[in-house]
Amino acid sequence: MKKLIKGLAQAAVYTGVNVQEGEEVYVISSVHAVELTHEVVRLCYERKAKRVVVRYRDDELTRLDYAHQTIDTLTHKPQYVYDERNYFARDDVKGCVISILCSDPNGLKDADGNKISAAHRADMKGLTPYYDKAMSHKVKWSIIAYPHPEWAKLMFPDLKPKDALKKLGKYIAKTTRVDNDNPAAAWEKHNAELKARSKKLKELNIKELHYVNKLGTDLIVGLPEGYVFGGGSDICGGVSFNANMPTEEVFSAPDCRNINGVVKASMPLCYGGKIIEGLSLTLKDGRITDYSADTNLDILKGIIETDEGSRSLGEVALVPYNSPISKLHTLFYETLFDENASCHFAIGEAYPTCIEGGKDMSRDELTKRGLNYSDVHVDFMVGTKDLNITATTRDGKTVPVFVDGNFTKEFE
Amino acid sequence: MKKLIKGLAQAAVYTGVNVQEGEEVYVISSVHAVELTHEVVRLCYERKAKRVVVRYRDDELTRLDYAHQTIDTLTHKPQYVYDERNYFARDDVKGCVISILCSDPNGLKDADGNKISAAHRADMKGLTPYYDKAMSHKVKWSIIAYPHPEWAKLMFPDLKPKDALKKLGKYIAKTTRVDNDNPAAAWEKHNAELKARSKKLKELNIKELHYVNKLGTDLIVGLPEGYVFGGGSDICGGVSFNANMPTEEVFSAPDCRNINGVVKASMPLCYGGKIIEGLSLTLKDGRITDYSADTNLDILKGIIETDEGSRSLGEVALVPYNSPISKLHTLFYETLFDENASCHFAIGEAYPTCIEGGKDMSRDELTKRGLNYSDVHVDFMVGTKDLNITATTRDGKTVPVFVDGNFTKEFE
Repeated sequence: MKKLIKGLAQAAVYTGVNVQEGEEVYVISSVHAVELTHEVVRLCYERKAKRVVVRYRDDELTRLDYAHQTIDTLTHKPQYVYDERNYFARDDVKGCVISILCSDPNGLKDADGNKISAAHRADMKGLTPYYDKAMSHKVKWSIIAYPHPEWAKLMFPDLKPKDALKKLGKYIAKTTRVDNDNPAAAWEKHNAELKARSKKLKELNIKELHYVNKLGTDLIVGLPEGYVFGGGSDICGGVSFNANMPTEEVFSAPDCRNINGVVKASMPLCYGGKIIEGLSLTLKDGRITDYSADTNLDILKGIIETDEGSRSLGEVALVPYNSPISKLHTLFYETLFDENASCHFAIGEAYPTCIEGGKDMSRDELTKRGLNYSDVHVDFMVGTKDLNITATTRDGKTVPVFVDGNFTKEFE
Repeated sequence: MKKLIKGLAQAAVYTGVNVQEGEEVYVISSVHAVELTHEVVRLCYERKAKRVVVRYRDDELTRLDYAHQTIDTLTHKPQYVYDERNYFARDDVKGCVISILCSDPNGLKDADGNKISAAHRADMKGLTPYYDKAMSHKVKWSIIAYPHPEWAKLMFPDLKPKDALKKLGKYIAKTTRVDNDNPAAAWEKHNAELKARSKKLKELNIKELHYVNKLGTDLIVGLPEGYVFGGGSDICGGVSFNANMPTEEVFSAPDCRNINGVVKASMPLCYGGKIIEGLSLTLKDGRITDYSADTNLDILKGIIETDEGSRSLGEVALVPYNSPISKLHTLFYETLFDENASCHFAIGEAYPTCIEGGKDMSRDELTKRGLNYSDVHVDFMVGTKDLNITATTRDGKTVPVFVDGNFTKEFE
C-alpha cells in the first residue's frame, strides 16, 4: 500500500491537477484514505501550494443522513456547504480540486431513491459556480480512487477482505499507470496517443455516428458542426491537467437535437450509492421519450426528470473493448473505471470544450450549436464485444469507426 | 473501547448538549475518533435531530498547514470556514455544537509560535458570532475527549502504546463519569453538588479572594457586585447542558479592574499544540504588567498581546486538590482535564453569565460591571496542595475558603 500511496499521490498532484506555486488546493477525501491524503497534501505543499484544504467524507455518516433527514432538510443545506467548493473556482482564487474516491458503491442501497435524486439535484444547483468552471476547464480538477474495504468486497466477493483490498489496490495502480517507475512519463505517452486519436476523429468531419449491437442498441447520434474530440489531458490557464485518472476515452458532445433510436446499457450504473441495472433509453429528435431499468428505476427517473437538459444526452465517448481496463474483465461498480472500459454516453450536460471556441461561448450560443445544458451529467456504459459504430461524414461518406467492439485500424 | 464509545456518546448527546427534536448538531471531531463519531451521530438522530454535520480534523494536516502556509494565509481564511460554525449559532437555527477532542497536545511543537498565535486570533475573530453566543449560553455546546495515540504516549511514556491508549481510555471514562451503569444519574447528582457549592459561594457575598501558596502566588482578586458562581450544567433556552465533560470546577468572573499581585502556574499549559511551562503573571489594578514563562514564551506573549482584554483575567475557578481528577496525580496536558484538577484563572474574556442578569446585558453594561472582554479565553492552572484562599466579604468579614489546597468544611 505504501507504494500505491506514493504513486497515487504523485499522479494526483503532478499529472492530475498539476499543482503550481501559489495555488489553493481543495482535497475531497475519505476517512478511509487518511494516509494517502497526508501524502497528497505533502506533495501539494512541496509544489509550493498556498493553501491546502481537506474535506473528509465518511460513508457511514452519509448513510445516517439519508436515513434520518427529511427530503426538505437534504435539499436545503446551509449556504456555506456550497461556498466551500465554489471558493476554489472563484475568479480571484487560483484554485484546483482533487477528489479521492474511496467509498462503498453500494453504500446507500437501503436509502430512499427520491431523497438521493433530490439531494443530488440540490447539490448540483448549489455547486453551479464550481461545475460551470469545471466543465469548461476554467478550474483544474482531478479524480483518483483509493481502495475501500466494502468496494473491494463488492468487486471480489470470493476473496478474503484483506486480499480483496490488495487486489483492488493492484488494479487501481495498474489502470492509473502508477505501477511503473515513471508514472509521469507513462501519462505523457498515453496523453499523446489519445490526442492523436482525437485529432483523426475531428478530421473525419463526422455528421452522425450509428451504433448497433446485439444487446439491442440501434442509435444514430448527430455531432454538432465544429465538434472537437477531447481525450487525455486538458488545458486550464496554460497548464495541463488530467481530470480523470484513469482515462481511456476520447469524447465529444452530441448535437442534442439529433439523436434517434434505442440505447441499452451494457453494464450496471452506480449512482449515489445505488446500482441501476438494465438501463434502456429511447430517443427521438434528441429527447428521451421512454426509459426503463431492471433495478432502481426511481433513481434513473430522478436523474432524467431533473430538468429540461436531463432528457437528452451530453457526451459521446469512445473506448475500445480491448482497452486496458476492459481487459481486466472486472466490473468496478465505479464510473471512473467502468466508463473507461466501455463506450459510453452521458445523460445531461455537455462539455463546452467539445466544440471549437466553446469555452468562451455564452450559454445561448452553445445551445444554438446543439450543446446540451443540465444540472446533471451521468455517464452510462454501452460498449460491447460486438458493437459496431459507423460514421456518416458531412461530405456523404460512410466510414466504419468501430468493428466488433474496437476501433478500426485507422483510429487505433 | 466499545463500552467507552457507547458511554462517551451518551454523555455528549444526552448530558452534554442534550439534543432536542429538530435541532441541528455540529460535531467537530478527528479522524482518530471515527467510531465514536458514528455513535454520537446515531444518537443525535435517535433524539430526532434535524441535521448532523461532522467536521473531521486531522493533526497531521494542521501540522503541514503551519509548516507551509504563510502567516498571511493562515490569518486570512476563506469566509466559509467561519460561516460553518457560526451557522449553528444563528438566531434562525436551533443549533448546538459537540467537540470531540482527540489530538496530540504536543502536535505543533515544531511550529512557529507567532503563526499559531496569529492564526488563533484570526480564528477567534472570525468565530465571534459563535463565541459570543457560546459564552452567554445562547447556544448549547459540549466538549468531550477521546484517546489519541500520541496523547496517550505523552501521558504514559513508560507504557506500551496499546496499554497507554487503554489507560487513557480508562481515565477518560472515570473522569467523565461514564464508567458506571447510569452515567446520566451520576451527572445529575454531580451537577446538584456543584450547584449547592456555587449557591453558598454567592451567599457569602465576597468582595475579594486572597490566594497564597509557597510556589509564589500572592494574589488578591476582586469579584464584581452581583457575581454568580457557575458550575455543572448550564441552561440554554430552558434546556440544561454540560459544556465541559469532565467538569469539577465552580467558577465566576473577577472584577477585571481589581486584581493585584503575583500568580504562578502550577501546571504546564497546553495551548495550540505547544506546552507553556513556568508561567508567571504580575497584575496591578487588573492589568498584567509583567509576564514570563520557561518555555514557549512567544506563545504566551501572543495570547497576552492579543487585545486590550487579554491583558487581564476573565475567570476565577475553584477546584479542590482532592478532586477526582487531581487524585489521579497525572498531568493530562489537556486543559479540559487539567483545569478540573486545579484552581485556575483564565486570561481574557469573562462569561457574561457570571453576573446576575449578565446574559442579557450589553457589552457596555458588562464592562461597567467589571467583566472583561477579549477575543481570547485561556485557562491556566494555579492550584497546589498548600494553596490557601481567604475571602473578604462585602460586610467586612474574613472567611477561609480554601485551606491546604481544599475547600473548608463549609463549602465541601
